[in-house]
Amino acid sequence: MAAFRIISADSHVSEPPNLWLERMDRKFRERAPRIERFGDSDCFVYEGQAAPQPIGLGVMAGKKPEEFKAMGVKMEDVRSGGWDPAARVEDQKIDGVDAEVVYPTLGMGLYVMPDVELKAAALRAYNDWLAEYCAHAPSRLVGAALLPVDDIAVAVAELRRMRDQGLRGALIPATAPEGRPYNDPSWDPLWAAASELDVPLSLHIGSGKKFAIRPGQGAAEIMITMEPMSMQEPVATFIWGAVFERFPKLRIVSVESGVGWLGYLLERMDHVYRKHRFWTQSALKKPPSEYFYDHVYATFQEDKVGMKIALDVGAHNLMWANDYPHTDTTWPESRRVIDDHFRGFPSEARDLIVGGNAARIYRLD
Amino acid sequence: MAAFRIISADSHVSEPPNLWLERMDRKFRERAPRIERFGDSDCFVYEGQAAPQPIGLGVMAGKKPEEFKAMGVKMEDVRSGGWDPAARVEDQKIDGVDAEVVYPTLGMGLYVMPDVELKAAALRAYNDWLAEYCAHAPSRLVGAALLPVDDIAVAVAELRRMRDQGLRGALIPATAPEGRPYNDPSWDPLWAAASELDVPLSLHIGSGKKFAIRPGQGAAEIMITMEPMSMQEPVATFIWGAVFERFPKLRIVSVESGVGWLGYLLERMDHVYRKHRFWTQSALKKPPSEYFYDHVYATFQEDKVGMKIALDVGAHNLMWANDYPHTDTTWPESRRVIDDHFRGFPSEARDLIVGGNAARIYRLD
Repeated sequence: MAAFRIISADSHVSEPPNLWLERMDRKFRERAPRIERFGDSDCFVYEGQAAPQPIGLGVMAGKKPEEFKAMGVKMEDVRSGGWDPAARVEDQKIDGVDAEVVYPTLGMGLYVMPDVELKAAALRAYNDWLAEYCAHAPSRLVGAALLPVDDIAVAVAELRRMRDQGLRGALIPATAPEGRPYNDPSWDPLWAAASELDVPLSLHIGSGKKFAIRPGQGAAEIMITMEPMSMQEPVATFIWGAVFERFPKLRIVSVESGVGWLGYLLERMDHVYRKHRFWTQSALKKPPSEYFYDHVYATFQEDKVGMKIALDVGAHNLMWANDYPHTDTTWPESRRVIDDHFRGFPSEARDLIVGGNAARIYRLD
Repeated sequence: MAAFRIISADSHVSEPPNLWLERMDRKFRERAPRIERFGDSDCFVYEGQAAPQPIGLGVMAGKKPEEFKAMGVKMEDVRSGGWDPAARVEDQKIDGVDAEVVYPTLGMGLYVMPDVELKAAALRAYNDWLAEYCAHAPSRLVGAALLPVDDIAVAVAELRRMRDQGLRGALIPATAPEGRPYNDPSWDPLWAAASELDVPLSLHIGSGKKFAIRPGQGAAEIMITMEPMSMQEPVATFIWGAVFERFPKLRIVSVESGVGWLGYLLERMDHVYRKHRFWTQSALKKPPSEYFYDHVYATFQEDKVGMKIALDVGAHNLMWANDYPHTDTTWPESRRVIDDHFRGFPSEARDLIVGGNAARIYRLD
């Protein structure tokens, strides 16, 4: 049995400014994603973005909400744990966290780059850097590679390459590329490879085509509110698309999506199965919730509604996270947040949710 | 106090085949929406639709799931309660329901008609017919008008006209017209009129631009699964857009959206308010959940997860419905479904959810 070990199933690096400039093939060097300074703001700049992306909100760990800001932040002002693995381990100790699954911060935006060859090179450069970062403390830093997915053969090759370098998870975009939803058979070779290699595939909110921010009062708040729930459709697509029927060893992780809506989604899907599977001629052989239990995991930081229905939804499928070092992080208060969320909770279920599930999925034992 | 009275907050008419042919201005007669027969299937035909719409799934009350079908259904084969108010009252008695708020079946599709003058004429014709239908039994049939919303002055005029004819609710599209989300100030005259006239505005799933059905395995099931949750964004838009801050008497109803996801949405919005309102410069003066409690109602048919968190979300904001005569209807088993959902539930909260709230909002006392 897992002890009361705490593993954050969703944390982030802060990529060093010159990662892509230093690591991409020479022929791409001039077009490499990079940090540039605009006035007093460091911004991430890459091809295909709507506008340079100020780094501020990605590096707010330890700040009060009143101090959060997108603009006016420079790389040298922020915690070095994002790029320095020794400092990261110290930050984990401050937070009382035993290990973290680490995702990109800047890198997730790169899925929108229009030149697929340039994009694949940029993602490979990220993966190379991440493997070195995690190698500093393999029992504490679990890396998830960024998979280029425009060409499935390239995706499969990168999955094998990064698995060999020690990365234990892999990201695909939360929003599938236009015209290729996740029930499209073109993905099958990737599902087969991930099954064979036993690598869970992660969909992290905000990756792929961004949730459309429309102008108007409250636009930013609407976007921040809706992003977690935007994972409902990809999860439903994997399940109804019978992907897990065809790939019984495939597992996906819905990252930073929250979990409080899962009870409704599962009940709704089972209702649709009960009432509509005849006229729709569904390909599923059992109720949708059963595919969820066998194949889908979801992460959250603060979600008391989720904990209310957690024992119905399934303690084996939920994973707590600290989201270090983003604005929604619980760092350095994770222990307090966990105590607050799991008061009166069965300890076995708590142990799974705060660490046991991540340890099992990523083979941390 | 409300007795244990049962009011369905979301039911439907089945529009008679010649409604638009008989009631629209002569100049529009040839372009009027109509029922046409294709082979052995009656279909609804109107300008701007992707394809003729078979009526089957809208008229399945009393059928078993194994019998559900879109094609091969004719108007004369289905229950007449949809267009004959005397038969409707008999069907209510079979179901043990004391009153119903009635929405369109075919009419909701008309929001996509490209000719706004033609569309407004078609919606007015529907409203005229609906007012007559409901006048047969005003204490049992609560009509919600279809508001044309392309021109806000036209919307306001139709709201006043239909209010005078006895309709007590009004529909606006669940998906706002392109470029005019519900936080856009162009809507303000409608919000002002609905507040003044004390008419709740309803957003019913599937109205406005349809949820995009993508091709591929499970596409229909994904659509049916996601439609209720597609109401999350418009609800968040009203709240974060500070619409209720500016119109303190306005009320909206999220119809057929289910309620099991509301706990997560409210917790998430309050989290975003607590953590992000400083840098976003939110216009809200209090936590988003407080606007919800004062202004938003939501309907469901079968939603046990919703009932688990109902007492946290607020018994005053939830309304049970039978969805007669669509595929998701509980007719003629509504009493059994209600008993099943409210076993062990506080009776005061149950009374509000199954009828008291609807009676209060639509002034049925």
